Amino acid sequence: MYGLIGRMRVQPGRRDAVIAILTRDAAAMPGCLSYIVAKDPADPDSIWITEAWDSAESHRASLKLPSVQAAIAEARPLIAGFGERFETEPVGGHGLVKGPA
Amino acid sequence: MYGLIGRMRVQPGRRDAVIAILTRDAAAMPGCLSYIVAKDPADPDSIWITEAWDSAESHRASLKLPSVQAAIAEARPLIAGFGERFETEPVGGHGLVKGPA
Repeated sequence: MYGLIGRMRVQPGRRDAVIAILTRDAAAMPGCLSYIVAKDPADPDSIWITEAWDSAESHRASLKLPSVQAAIAEARPLIAGFGERFETEPVGGHGLVKGPA
Repeated sequence: MYGLIGRMRVQPGRRDAVIAILTRDAAAMPGCLSYIVAKDPADPDSIWITEAWDSAESHRASLKLPSVQAAIAEARPLIAGFGERFETEPVGGHGLVKGPA
């Protein structure tokens, strides 16, 4: 498995707009086992994204999906930057579920 | 919702043992929507744990479950310390699922 933990910083006041874009097609990515979007309670302009994939290849392939390309294009002007970023190797637990595709 | 992202450091060579303890009862915690244990690919003695709960109260209550108390007692001698720790407020995505209880 392949995982990512990352913090995204958004333009002031645009967090809900970015969250709406990020969560729109979250279940429709082949190989995605978990994709959870969270607000940072300590920073009104930061979002945490935690991801688990069956492989790094599935994650890379997801970035080429038309729905993801459209989301990236839509979100880009609202993104101010990125903070922490950690790659992980998920091994188990609760909530790792296959998507519909 | 309530979330946690944290890094745990284990005694040298004991990562698989700690992972086995942490994942044993992962699905059996009331209010737990996601509990994923991951290896840190950059540090053989570090584990990432990402959690999502229906509320902070459910998370607090989980720490008193007999199964969790037993896991904590068993894992404690194998834990070297803790690294990054971030509280989050999950809002949506894929892989947020109710446990059996």
